[in-house]
Amino acid sequence: MTSPHAAPPLPGQSGPDAGLPFGNSILALADALAAISEQADALTVTYATATHRAAAEWLQRRMLACHFDEVGIDAVGNVVGRYHARESGAAQLLTGSHFDTVRNGGRYDGRLGILAPMEVVAALAAAGRRLAFDIVVIGFADEEGVRFGTTFLGSSAVIGAFDTAVLERRDADGITMREAMQTAGLAPDAIACAMLTDRPTIGFVEIHIEQGPVLLDENLALGVVSAINGAVRMMFEIDGAAGHAGTTPMNGRRDAACAAAEATLLIERRCSAEPALVGTVGMLEVPAGSVNVIPAQARFSLDLRAPDDAQRDRALADILAGIDALCRARGVRWRSEEIMRAPATAADPGLRGLWRDAVTGIGLPLRELPSGAGHDAIRMAGACAQAMLFVRCGAGGISHSPEETLDAADADAAARAFDLFLQLLEQRMRGT
Amino acid sequence: MTSPHAAPPLPGQSGPDAGLPFGNSILALADALAAISEQADALTVTYATATHRAAAEWLQRRMLACHFDEVGIDAVGNVVGRYHARESGAAQLLTGSHFDTVRNGGRYDGRLGILAPMEVVAALAAAGRRLAFDIVVIGFADEEGVRFGTTFLGSSAVIGAFDTAVLERRDADGITMREAMQTAGLAPDAIACAMLTDRPTIGFVEIHIEQGPVLLDENLALGVVSAINGAVRMMFEIDGAAGHAGTTPMNGRRDAACAAAEATLLIERRCSAEPALVGTVGMLEVPAGSVNVIPAQARFSLDLRAPDDAQRDRALADILAGIDALCRARGVRWRSEEIMRAPATAADPGLRGLWRDAVTGIGLPLRELPSGAGHDAIRMAGACAQAMLFVRCGAGGISHSPEETLDAADADAAARAFDLFLQLLEQRMRGT
Repeated sequence: MTSPHAAPPLPGQSGPDAGLPFGNSILALADALAAISEQADALTVTYATATHRAAAEWLQRRMLACHFDEVGIDAVGNVVGRYHARESGAAQLLTGSHFDTVRNGGRYDGRLGILAPMEVVAALAAAGRRLAFDIVVIGFADEEGVRFGTTFLGSSAVIGAFDTAVLERRDADGITMREAMQTAGLAPDAIACAMLTDRPTIGFVEIHIEQGPVLLDENLALGVVSAINGAVRMMFEIDGAAGHAGTTPMNGRRDAACAAAEATLLIERRCSAEPALVGTVGMLEVPAGSVNVIPAQARFSLDLRAPDDAQRDRALADILAGIDALCRARGVRWRSEEIMRAPATAADPGLRGLWRDAVTGIGLPLRELPSGAGHDAIRMAGACAQAMLFVRCGAGGISHSPEETLDAADADAAARAFDLFLQLLEQRMRGT
Repeated sequence: MTSPHAAPPLPGQSGPDAGLPFGNSILALADALAAISEQADALTVTYATATHRAAAEWLQRRMLACHFDEVGIDAVGNVVGRYHARESGAAQLLTGSHFDTVRNGGRYDGRLGILAPMEVVAALAAAGRRLAFDIVVIGFADEEGVRFGTTFLGSSAVIGAFDTAVLERRDADGITMREAMQTAGLAPDAIACAMLTDRPTIGFVEIHIEQGPVLLDENLALGVVSAINGAVRMMFEIDGAAGHAGTTPMNGRRDAACAAAEATLLIERRCSAEPALVGTVGMLEVPAGSVNVIPAQARFSLDLRAPDDAQRDRALADILAGIDALCRARGVRWRSEEIMRAPATAADPGLRGLWRDAVTGIGLPLRELPSGAGHDAIRMAGACAQAMLFVRCGAGGISHSPEETLDAADADAAARAFDLFLQLLEQRMRGT
């Protein structure tokens, strides 16, 4: 079992609750960080703004207070804290998440995965403990990609896969990313220097709120992520025949809206037939529809995800065959376009096993679940092993919203699980 | 059986086809009238424009050429031709249809119902025949209501039910209807003088292209209209819950789009279960939908019509109950607003019987069908008996489009049926 370490108290905070060695500190830190925002009444931190820089500097100061040995802001704006191993030249364990937000976002999305490991490192430092590996906590500068339509910018730089073409993208005000970075004191021409995975790396682990209701519904604090779901996105268009709503008998219609409706329910039915598969028709419209005209055209989107690519592709094949059949039966034509495809990313078995043991080791039941959303871990997987830990998201699982909540006890469990994860990894590396 | 009368040849036309005493003339007249348009490459005649006035004057000249005894343009712009009975003081039979069009409309919509009776009267006059009743052919000035958003303007004036409040309506250029009427030489302050139903009236009969595919599909030239369908129009709004398309399990969703899709198919299924009932979801949308967000809201419309109000209302009750049940099952809320309700108008049994006998009397099979669309006859029914005759619409039943077609043989059959209708009415009035 883990031995709780005292987290350094924040100014104005009383000492840590003996029952929650990390939880109250983490929530107070998330509150303090959330006070730094581009908007007065909402939490918004987008890439390479002055506010973004202020948030990075807040994290940097806090990492120094946590007694990381090296703390810096890299060329792309990631905040990186390194806590040295007992011996120099040791391998490194990477962890962290993003500190940028969506507009009017939640204060735990991303940030929990930076703050919890920081507090665990602070406790190690306070106890004077060193491990067999460096612990590197990264606050990724841009995962949401709100300002420039990018995603995983920070983690791309860390694995040496930053696409410099995006430097020329412009924000809504016409400012290029390169200009914005220069204004923010970042180094667009030195992004290669942000690479961290060019030295021996055990892997990347990420703690993140679930952003969904599964753990909440099952009354569980933590879940071990089995895989980050693969996704396919499609746009569909159906062409039927316009007709007079009053004079065209039901059996003489080629109604594009009815075909789209049938396709929507077919997608829902097919995806409900298997666990872990999800399919969503998020866009649905009859362009220029009139109340008294049979729709000649309908459009809809499909977002289809599964933890296993083969499972997802079987579902997609069934959906396409079903849409083809129903459109033939209705005498309407259809076409589709695939607009996005990302493979599923299974968790590394070794690191996932450590998370499993850490969760049960702190006395919690084991629940494994796929991640429906993308995370920095999916990008990190391009260079090293990855495994994520999910933490229960309150308020019905709502995220990307000010309604997002996190219980202190759950934040605490996450930190204690990470603490035990480190000990278990230490044991494994020492061969004990 | 009817004795065909020669229609007066048009300039540049050869004489009538012996096999089609009326059909070729009617089509040639429709072509000539269609040359008068607000647009160079499309047929558009909207109320109280200079073009509209030119079309009225063309009809007036043609009525004079057909030897109507009285021809005039009334205060509201209707073109009215009266062919006198043998004796003065006789009752009148009203017939006709509208000569205004939708934008880029068809040349037979409305106009067939003016031109065919005109040609039959011309034949009566050429043969020197008078009947026991006046025949009044009316070219209604405005049925489509394109310019001012009105409908049945011409027939409203004829029955003395013109709502003078509409005189203050403005067109897209800000011109009031009153101003437009004055510019066109009409008499907004004398609309009451347009009333025709203040003298003994047998009823109103209207010949109209079907504007649907029923007769075409059954290979029939003519159909007797049993009733003009009643209609209800509703707007629906469904409120579900937004959610992340990747992280929200299928069984934890309250998807407004899926609920709208299920409602759409329920409407289709319910309306397909009974003949003559039609229901259309013409508008369907997820406002501000995103490919990766579970829809929180969906909106759709319903247009529901039946030849019998009780049938329509039973269907509506079933649809509302079904939507309520499916929304409860899905945990979403719904609300609806009724935006239009018009009662069904059954044809007058006596006049309908005459149409039946006329159709079979010219050797055609009897088919009776409801009218899904509204027509001037529905307005005329406010003051007198009405009965309509439908004529096959070519090109898949398309109307309100330049693709609208009419066969000369079908136009001819319509005119011959009207000719026989007059003779049968004559016999009935003389008690033979």
